[in-house]
Amino acid sequence: MQIEKTTLLLNKDICLRNIRKMTNKALANGKIFRPHFKTHQSAEIANWFREEGVNQITVSSLTMANYFAAAGWDDITIAFPVNIRELDGIEKLASRISLNILLDNADSILEINNRLKSKVGVFVKIDTGYHRAGIEPEFINEIDELLNLISSCTLLSFKGFLSHYGNTYNAHSKQEIRKIYEQSTQRLVTLKSIFTAKYPGLIISIGDTPSASLISGFNGIDELRPGNFVFYDSMQYLLGSCSLTDIAIALACPVTARYEKRKEIVVYGGAIHLSHDSAIHPDGFTFYGFIARLRGNKWDVLPESNYVKSISQEHGVVKLQDSVFDSVKIGDLIAILPIHSCMTANSMGKYLVDGKNFITNMSNKSFD
Amino acid sequence: MQIEKTTLLLNKDICLRNIRKMTNKALANGKIFRPHFKTHQSAEIANWFREEGVNQITVSSLTMANYFAAAGWDDITIAFPVNIRELDGIEKLASRISLNILLDNADSILEINNRLKSKVGVFVKIDTGYHRAGIEPEFINEIDELLNLISSCTLLSFKGFLSHYGNTYNAHSKQEIRKIYEQSTQRLVTLKSIFTAKYPGLIISIGDTPSASLISGFNGIDELRPGNFVFYDSMQYLLGSCSLTDIAIALACPVTARYEKRKEIVVYGGAIHLSHDSAIHPDGFTFYGFIARLRGNKWDVLPESNYVKSISQEHGVVKLQDSVFDSVKIGDLIAILPIHSCMTANSMGKYLVDGKNFITNMSNKSFD
Repeated sequence: MQIEKTTLLLNKDICLRNIRKMTNKALANGKIFRPHFKTHQSAEIANWFREEGVNQITVSSLTMANYFAAAGWDDITIAFPVNIRELDGIEKLASRISLNILLDNADSILEINNRLKSKVGVFVKIDTGYHRAGIEPEFINEIDELLNLISSCTLLSFKGFLSHYGNTYNAHSKQEIRKIYEQSTQRLVTLKSIFTAKYPGLIISIGDTPSASLISGFNGIDELRPGNFVFYDSMQYLLGSCSLTDIAIALACPVTARYEKRKEIVVYGGAIHLSHDSAIHPDGFTFYGFIARLRGNKWDVLPESNYVKSISQEHGVVKLQDSVFDSVKIGDLIAILPIHSCMTANSMGKYLVDGKNFITNMSNKSFD
Repeated sequence: MQIEKTTLLLNKDICLRNIRKMTNKALANGKIFRPHFKTHQSAEIANWFREEGVNQITVSSLTMANYFAAAGWDDITIAFPVNIRELDGIEKLASRISLNILLDNADSILEINNRLKSKVGVFVKIDTGYHRAGIEPEFINEIDELLNLISSCTLLSFKGFLSHYGNTYNAHSKQEIRKIYEQSTQRLVTLKSIFTAKYPGLIISIGDTPSASLISGFNGIDELRPGNFVFYDSMQYLLGSCSLTDIAIALACPVTARYEKRKEIVVYGGAIHLSHDSAIHPDGFTFYGFIARLRGNKWDVLPESNYVKSISQEHGVVKLQDSVFDSVKIGDLIAILPIHSCMTANSMGKYLVDGKNFITNMSNKSFD
């Protein structure tokens, strides 16, 4: 297919390999595997998971739950503190599929109990150190009161404790990721041990891709919800979760200008395609993605000294090694390995699979 | 209208005031006014400009040019180094409207000349210090050769020199913005003086919102292309381009969790809504937007000590003053004044105007 403008490429082989590897790892360890679909957001890619035996999923919004429910998924956890303004929609969805919601406060429970007519599963959000949302696992009295309140609501079924070790994304080494994982897990295991007699069957659910990629065994954990691994990205490479050749998507960008003096090119590819996510390059400065060159329907990753130096709304400024710069012409395509694949997939709305056909996701635009 | 989930609010009065003020300023100074439509990306908001007498516009992609051409705009500059992979589409559009393209290299010209059948206007991109794209204005020989080449192509009509003083966005004071403006303009005026005998009628076109907002007179400039002023945003406020009450859009976000200990709330509003743009707060740390409270269909801006502390894909963590925190309940809406309104408008795809009706832009999603 002739690529005319900025296009998100998907290598299906790499994607399937990532899906299989993580699915097998979870199942081999006897864990419930409930992957997060916020990364790909695509009913078609969801089918690739189904073919591996996945039938329980995680999403981050009611909108996303509705999208996947329409595609036939009937066991969904919305892993975001419940938005009580959407209770009508939650009720509608809960009346026809098995739906779990997430919460960490009594106010939400009272409102839910007043307005729901269908059963929903409830996970309580626990904050093991990321400090975004959730109750700290040592706040036993607070958690106990919340669980008592949930138990008093006949339509609410307490499922367990859910946490996201998002602080692994700030780690500076694999050892640090392992340490965050171990400390966080120990706190959740202790919490479970306190409540398991009163609530037999309660589970512990976690799911960041750095931990899920680097840890084996997952002792004490019951359910895994990673999402990003389906594509991985430049950030996961920097964290040590994957190699650059495990990255399943790349943003193909037309080269529109060349600057000999600074060995930089301008590509049609910017924040509307990649979002404004950045990371720290191994050489210590802020950057916006590694670079690859296209070869047929695949791509070859270039050395790390080729990188996106800055982005604005549609522009990407790419710094290249001298030899690479000399080989790149106006009108060529180069590929950017995104810092954050979830955001790039969300921005682009569709994927060109192996250079052959487009598949869309729920963020596909109505005008293109 | 009952707001159930993250919604981009537009205050039409503020927006019209911003449009009128900038249009009048440009016309009162005798300048060609060719506003950039990449900020709002909306055919309906475009009509508000038309009602003020605007009939020439700037866009940043062929896709955007096609969208506005379909809405009846017939004099469009695509202010992005021309992507020669889209020449078929450029030809198609140039055959029916007055189209200007931008370039800074000979390779593009040769390809364009081989493939176009319709006339297009050409602006040469000049780099006055932003160092993203363009030729430095002192590279007279290089520019002369490029203009000779353009003149040799019968379908190409040289229009003038176009620059974007994007380095004003890195300024730390209004004085610094004025200094960047003056120095950059002087270089362009000198450049024009060199070529105006050979190319009578050539114009100088510039367009960053900080300069356009702060400068008066615009001596030596022929055309103004600002875009962001239609909405402004938290970044423009920090630069001194506007006051917080000039910001015409705000992201309404449901409050889904509250944390007494840290006086923080979690809202349903994150990078998929705001992109990942950040700025430096007046108190010296990185932040992701100021906060307002809704009042009817409008909003009241809160003091700067209320701000978005961090964002992830759907989550925003908002730090509040004690008194504000105490007044915010689960299920309330709070509003975020985006760091970068262009990106928020692009991410959201539609606007709720004065709480009454939605209007869409070209990035509207097919599933919602």
